[in-house]
Parts: sequence; C-alpha cells; structure tokens
Amino acid sequence: MISEGDYVLIMLDPRRTWLVRVEKDKTLHTHKGVLNLGELIGRNFGCKIMSSTGAEFFALKPLIRDFVMKSKRITQIIYPKDLGLIVFLSGIGPGSRVVEAGTGSGALTMVLAHYVRPDGHVYSYDVREDVQKVALENLKRAGLSDFVTLKLKDITEGIDERDVDAVILDMATPWEVVPHAYESLKPSGVFISFSPTIEQVKKTVSALRKHKFLEITTVETLMRNIIVEEDRTRPETRMIAHTGYITFARKYTEV
Amino acid sequence: MISEGDYVLIMLDPRRTWLVRVEKDKTLHTHKGVLNLGELIGRNFGCKIMSSTGAEFFALKPLIRDFVMKSKRITQIIYPKDLGLIVFLSGIGPGSRVVEAGTGSGALTMVLAHYVRPDGHVYSYDVREDVQKVALENLKRAGLSDFVTLKLKDITEGIDERDVDAVILDMATPWEVVPHAYESLKPSGVFISFSPTIEQVKKTVSALRKHKFLEITTVETLMRNIIVEEDRTRPETRMIAHTGYITFARKYTEV
Amino acid sequence: MISEGDYVLIMLDPRRTWLVRVEKDKTLHTHKGVLNLGELIGRNFGCKIMSSTGAEFFALKPLIRDFVMKSKRITQIIYPKDLGLIVFLSGIGPGSRVVEAGTGSGALTMVLAHYVRPDGHVYSYDVREDVQKVALENLKRAGLSDFVTLKLKDITEGIDERDVDAVILDMATPWEVVPHAYESLKPSGVFISFSPTIEQVKKTVSALRKHKFLEITTVETLMRNIIVEEDRTRPETRMIAHTGYITFARKYTEV
Amino acid sequence: MISEGDYVLIMLDPRRTWLVRVEKDKTLHTHKGVLNLGELIGRNFGCKIMSSTGAEFFALKPLIRDFVMKSKRITQIIYPKDLGLIVFLSGIGPGSRVVEAGTGSGALTMVLAHYVRPDGHVYSYDVREDVQKVALENLKRAGLSDFVTLKLKDITEGIDERDVDAVILDMATPWEVVPHAYESLKPSGVFISFSPTIEQVKKTVSALRKHKFLEITTVETLMRNIIVEEDRTRPETRMIAHTGYITFARKYTEV
Repeated sequence: MISEGDYVLIMLDPRRTWLVRVEKDKTLHTHKGVLNLGELIGRNFGCKIMSSTGAEFFALKPLIRDFVMKSKRITQIIYPKDLGLIVFLSGIGPGSRVVEAGTGSGALTMVLAHYVRPDGHVYSYDVREDVQKVALENLKRAGLSDFVTLKLKDITEGIDERDVDAVILDMATPWEVVPHAYESLKPSGVFISFSPTIEQVKKTVSALRKHKFLEITTVETLMRNIIVEEDRTRPETRMIAHTGYITFARKYTEV
Repeated sequence: MISEGDYVLIMLDPRRTWLVRVEKDKTLHTHKGVLNLGELIGRNFGCKIMSSTGAEFFALKPLIRDFVMKSKRITQIIYPKDLGLIVFLSGIGPGSRVVEAGTGSGALTMVLAHYVRPDGHVYSYDVREDVQKVALENLKRAGLSDFVTLKLKDITEGIDERDVDAVILDMATPWEVVPHAYESLKPSGVFISFSPTIEQVKKTVSALRKHKFLEITTVETLMRNIIVEEDRTRPETRMIAHTGYITFARKYTEV
Repeated sequence: MISEGDYVLIMLDPRRTWLVRVEKDKTLHTHKGVLNLGELIGRNFGCKIMSSTGAEFFALKPLIRDFVMKSKRITQIIYPKDLGLIVFLSGIGPGSRVVEAGTGSGALTMVLAHYVRPDGHVYSYDVREDVQKVALENLKRAGLSDFVTLKLKDITEGIDERDVDAVILDMATPWEVVPHAYESLKPSGVFISFSPTIEQVKKTVSALRKHKFLEITTVETLMRNIIVEEDRTRPETRMIAHTGYITFARKYTEV
Repeated sequence: MISEGDYVLIMLDPRRTWLVRVEKDKTLHTHKGVLNLGELIGRNFGCKIMSSTGAEFFALKPLIRDFVMKSKRITQIIYPKDLGLIVFLSGIGPGSRVVEAGTGSGALTMVLAHYVRPDGHVYSYDVREDVQKVALENLKRAGLSDFVTLKLKDITEGIDERDVDAVILDMATPWEVVPHAYESLKPSGVFISFSPTIEQVKKTVSALRKHKFLEITTVETLMRNIIVEEDRTRPETRMIAHTGYITFARKYTEV
C-alpha cells in the first residue's frame, strides 16, 4: 500500500519514468498531462493512474535499480550490468562491512548498502564535499543512509577501517589505494576496482601483484537489449560498447 | 579464524581449486601432493598451506560465488555474469520473499538465499526429487538451507505463495508459469526468466503481454576475460558466447 | 595525380568528409570555409588543401569503402564489417558472376562489382525503379557501372542467369528466392543472405534445408572502435550492436 | 567439371573436411571409409561421392576461404572475420599492388593475391625461409603463386617497392615498419596492421602519429555462430573472443 512520504516510480513507458515522493497535494507535470500524486495514497504499488489529459501512467514501487538510475548525478554512474557483477564477485551480503571510494553520486554506495543491510555497513570515501552531499540525498531517498558512513577523506592517504570484507573502488587512481586496501581487508577479503581505461587496469594489476593478492582477474561485460516481436525479433541496433573493466583480487596472508 | 567444520576454498591457482570442509584428521589429495586440512584449524582464512611435496596452496574463505561454482551439479548452472544481473534486476535484498523454479542444482537458489537473509525467504519448486536432494546438500554446505523451502511440486500447475517480491525462473517452459506468477506476485512485483533459446523468450514475452505486466524487456550479457601483462595485454582468445537471455517484467494492477 | 573529373574524398577529420568530383571552377562550401576544387588538378591524391578561412583539408583517393559510405541512400546500407565478411565468405573474386537482390542504393552492388572486375559481372535485381536509378548513379560515380546489369524484376519470381558463382541477397523475404537460387547457381555455388531479424533467418534456413544446400551456417559480427591514447586506451562507449545475420550455404548436386 | 589435378574440398560435414588434389588412382582414407578420388574426374563440383563404407561425402569447389582454412600452417593464421574486413578496409581490388609482412603460412598472402588478380601483385616479406616455403606451397595449391613475390627480407630494414596501394602487416613489431610503409605507399595509400595485443596497437598508433598518416583508427571484431533450429535457436555456447586489433591509416602528403 502506498503511504504519504513513499517514493514511487511513475512510468509512462520504460523510457519515460519519474521517481517522486508521494505527498497529499503534490502534482507531477508531464508532457502527457498532470498527475495528482495525492490520489495514490492508500492504493497499491503497481496501480494505474490517469493524468489530467487521460494518459495512463503506473505507480511502481522503486527497485534498487530505479534508485540507481534515477539518482541525482554529478558524476558518471556505473551501469546495472556492472553493478550486479561487482556485487556478486565481491561476495558481500547481509552483514558485510565494505569500504568504497569514491562516493561519487552514491549510486554504487546505494547498491552496496542495499545488500549489506541490516547489520552490515558501507564506509564511503570521497574528497569532494559537493558529491557527498548529493550522495547523501540519494541515499536518504532510497532509505539507505543508516547503513553508510560518508567519509570526506582522501582514500589514497589511508583507510581507517580494519578487517573489512571488501574494498570496492571506482576512482581515477585505484592503484594508489592497493597498499591501503591490503591493510584494511581481513585475510581472504576481496578487492574490486572498476576502471574505464586499460592503463588504469594495468597499473592496478601491477600494484596488486606487488602485494599479497591472488586470483587477480580482469573482466569486461557487454549487455545487449533484444527486441522481441512476433515477426521481427532482433538485438537492438545500438548498445553501450564499453563502460569499464572490473578487476578482482583476494588478499592472502602468510600466517 | 578457521574452525573445525568450516568450508575453505583451497586454491593452487585460479583454475585449480577445491571446496572442502576442514576436519581434524582430514587430508586433501592433489596432483601436487597431500594437504593436511587439520592444520588449518585456528589459522586465518587466506593463509598459505604447503602440501607434502612442498607446493604452495591457499585456504580462502569461500564467497557465494565459490559455493555456486563448486556446487555439486546435475543440471547446467547459471554463470556469474547472469546471476549478478538477475539478482540486481530483480530488486531483491535482505527481507525479500522470492519464488524460484526449477531448483536444479540449487546454484541460483543459493544466490537468492544469500541476498534475502536474514529475514527473507526463497520458495524453490522442482519436480525432480533427485535434483532437490543435491540442491539441499549444496545449500547446507553454504549455510543457507534455513532460508529456503524446497517444494517438490510442478510450478506450471500453480504457486502456493502470495504477495511475493519476485518470481525467478530458470526452466524449460517459463511461459506456462506466467499466469501463476501474476497471481503470486504482489503488485509491482518482478518476474524474471532465464532461457537459452530465442523461442522460449518469444513465448514467455507473448505470455507476459497477455497478462498485466509492463516494462517487459529482454537482455543478454557477454563477459570477456582480459589478460593483463606488462607487454601483452589482450582479451582471452576464447569466451562463453551465449548462456541465456534474461527477460524481466513488473506486475501492474488496475486498482 | 588528380585529374579533372576524378572523385576525391575531402576530409577535415574522419567524421567530416565529402565525396566530390573535381572540376575546374567548382567550389565546396563547408562550415570551415570554401575550398577551390580546381586547384587540386595536377596535385597528388592525399594532398593538403586549405580553405578560404585557412582550415586544413585533405583530398584523398576514394576507396571502395568511401564510395559505399558516401553513396546516395534511399535504403539502409550494409556496414563495412558485414560487407567484408559477405564478400570473403562468398568466395567471389575477379571473374566471378554474381546475382544480387535487392539492388537498394547499390552499396553492396558496388562492392561486388569492385571485386569481380575486370571479367566478372553482377546481375542486380530490384522491383523499385527509383532505387535502381540511385544505384546507377552511385555505381557510375565509383566507375563500376560497366560491371553491373541492373534488372528491374522481382527476383522472387525467378532468376534469368544460370551457372552463377554466387547469389547474394539483402531483401525482406530471402526464403522465397531459395528455389530460384538453386536453379541459378552452378554446382558448388554459394548462397548468402543478410537479414536483420531472426525470423527471416529461420525461414531462410528452413528453405535451404528443403533444397540441396549444405554447410548451412549463420553468423553475426560485432565491431568495436578502440580509442587509442597514451594514457586512456579503451573501447568507444557506444557501438552498433546489431546490423544483421549472415546466412551462408553451398549448393550440392547428386550427379 | 572436375578435372585431374583440380583441388576439391571433400566434406563429410562442416567440421570434417579435406582439401585434396584429384588424381586418377588416388584415394582418401577417412574414419568413414575410403574415397576413390579418381571417380570424381568428369563430374560436377558439388557432387556427392560415397565412401567404401557407404558414407556420403561431397566434393566442393574450394573457395578462397577453404584454401585459407586448410592451408598448411606453421604460424597462427588470421580468421575469416578479420580477413574480410582487412581486405575491405584496405580498398584493394583487381590491379592493386600490395606489400605484406610477415608472410607466415601465407594465408593472408593468398587472400590478397586472390583479390588483386589478374593485374595486381603482392610483395610478401618474411625473414624465415621455412615459412615462405610453406607459404609458397599454399599459394601454388590455390593457383595464386603467379601474383605473389615472396621476399626473404627483414621488412623492418626497408621496403623495396614504391607507390604501392597498401601496406598490410601481421607481425610482432609493426611500429618499426611505419616509416618504411610511409616511403613505400603512394600518396593516399592505406596502412593496415593486425596485432593481438593492445601494447602493439599503442606503439603502432604512436608511430603513425609521428608520420604523415591520417584517419588512424583501430577496431576489433567479434563473430558469433548462430544455431538455427525450429525450436531452439540460439548463439553457440562458445566463440573466439579475441583474435587481434585492426589498425588502419592513410598516408597524406603536403604537396
């Protein structure tokens, strides 16, 4: 049931969606007419709602993916195809403690927080106060700010936390963080870095090899949308050809 | 710290790994000598262990991915690239209630259970008793059996649960489950199907269009391994070119 | 040496090019100033030419690829990645006799003509007079019209030529041409069809299986552009994800 | 019609083929029985031939692709997906003069020779006498040796030919050839290099930028086989994920 204060994803079609907070006297203005959001209160998520011009919209319960795709952005965000794989490879789950940098718009932060709930925690480093402000807003909207500590600190100068399950990086110079990640990770902990260029990957892998990391592997993923029609099924003409490389490693220890 | 009864992932190199239970007098025989697993008790996860012939192995804490890749299999399992995306698109997380079919070897079941802990639950349908027996074994090994109810039932004849967050299918005839999924899902809930062939996708999409589902989309992912070497960086020569298509939809409701 | 009447590819940069005929008093107007094309006469292909505003352009000798990419289009054209593979798989070369349909804008026609020169020939079928007019213009510009016979005929009603080396189709209903292709091809000749949708492929493959064709295979290709920079090498963000499937087969005979 | 001395591609199925010369009393021994090749004389290419055990084979006219795939190899050969694109991008055709290095097993040499016939020529450099011997054999088998001059010379020390249409490289250090390629190419001529690693690409692109080359571009291609069946159409499970990068450039000139 939709309550006042809930966020809903208003959908006209998959390409035209709005993530809005439901309030009694609030309206949403679209090119297909005005929606009276207040009338959603007490109805089901997933319900149909008509605009002032009679266009049909739907009020969906936002998924973590919707919070990500609709986050306020002042930095590039990581795509679903990469987010899903990063989380899965990292091994994190409910209860995990994770260090992340940079916070950026908080898209990855949100996703990590979503999965470590209710007992885990995300420590997210960034040197830019403005981006952390946006990230906090995005986290609050998704109801995930309690599971995150935003740290206005330069992670290349050190990580405060110890015995964390994973260090996950999406930043310009991940290789500078490798020694700190080693100190911060618990033995057998996971290092993951997401980088757009091959030079970043090479420097990061080289740094990992100089420390006690094993199973150092780099992958890239591609995702294609398939148009499914009775008589003209085919992949979409265009796709995102490259987002970034994911580098994975695990910490080992002599003792 | 490794305790008796813990599972460890013994790694010689990324391609030669063993998932074993640590017991006092247990040994692991490899082509590089014998490991005395008992000597791991009290040591750190991630520690080095030498075989009888002096070869170096590591005893890692298994990640959910390791439990998946090392699961006993009597059916084809879904690959990490797909598992990560299925979980992410489904929107599930701690607390979610999920219906799954077929159980198969329980690889996807394990993954879903991992993420819905500690308050969520997975209801997994399969008509084959033998596969559910194997799945149970795999779930127990991963410490996840408490979060799963294995149901020896034909999901094409109906789903018992109501108001679930997601219905996730990896089976031969997903289109036959679409009407039941609609009944079982809570409004705004997510339907996901994973199918290797385009004909399965077409039939499933066609069934979804006949029911109240929206944002019906189909994607496929490709993952390439990158070999990173100082002077010969390049994608690996071979890759998995196709596993399956992921079809996603959300339930809507008139009221 | 550039002579009057030659075509040159004027290039400002790889994304801003013009295919023009050199004439004594002709000018080319661009957003970077006016070029006096007459001054190219007597100079080398590949030479630099300055515009009225001092911008640097180059006057390249057009390659077959340039004639294709710069052809006047009233239909979708096949991409280089597919053209190269179609020609290679077809086995054609100097001296080959090829049947093609539909003519469309003549892009594929041009390419086939380019490779069968000087003794081979291309018979190109289309039912639309307007497209053949454009195709003829494109072929003349590339100096290839002598190697092509444009036939204003419906190829689904039959092929006039016999003992041809290859039948190459880029049209909506290739499966309707399969019986005619069999009649037209010399024994061991090659059938190739390029189709955007999987349903077209299925119908064509099914038709091929009903006739005496073997080695029936279907492929698709993907091409990524790589950005090569000293410190930020990476695939381009976007790419063409799908153009069409290429289906190949060879005719066999009992006797 | 098959004559004595002709090469035929004997095909049991697409994965089991033999490229053999037809001689009166010659036999081909396979695991499905013995074929009497002499009985092919006077029959059609593409005809059926039965083995001693009654298995059905076909005697196809070899395409240039068959000569490539069946060439005797002592080096890695370039795949069809790359060969087709290299030829197309290079702009060569009947009459072109091309410099190539290294000769290797002559697969690319063969392909280039096939397309420059009857008036063009390929100059192929290699420092290894043994590979050129094999290449010559392969070229003779394909009837293409007249269109090729094999040069036992180190191309990194210079190219003898002038005013060639294209320089096409498949060798370990293509960047060392860039200055010589510039001297050898006619203005507006095409440079192409095929390299498996990103470091080779970076060095080559860097060398091209130091000389008068423009439109310097690098691409990679992927090819997937599609299994087309009435009710289980899907891409093949495995594919070649990487062969090499193709770098293209054109020579310009100040005058």
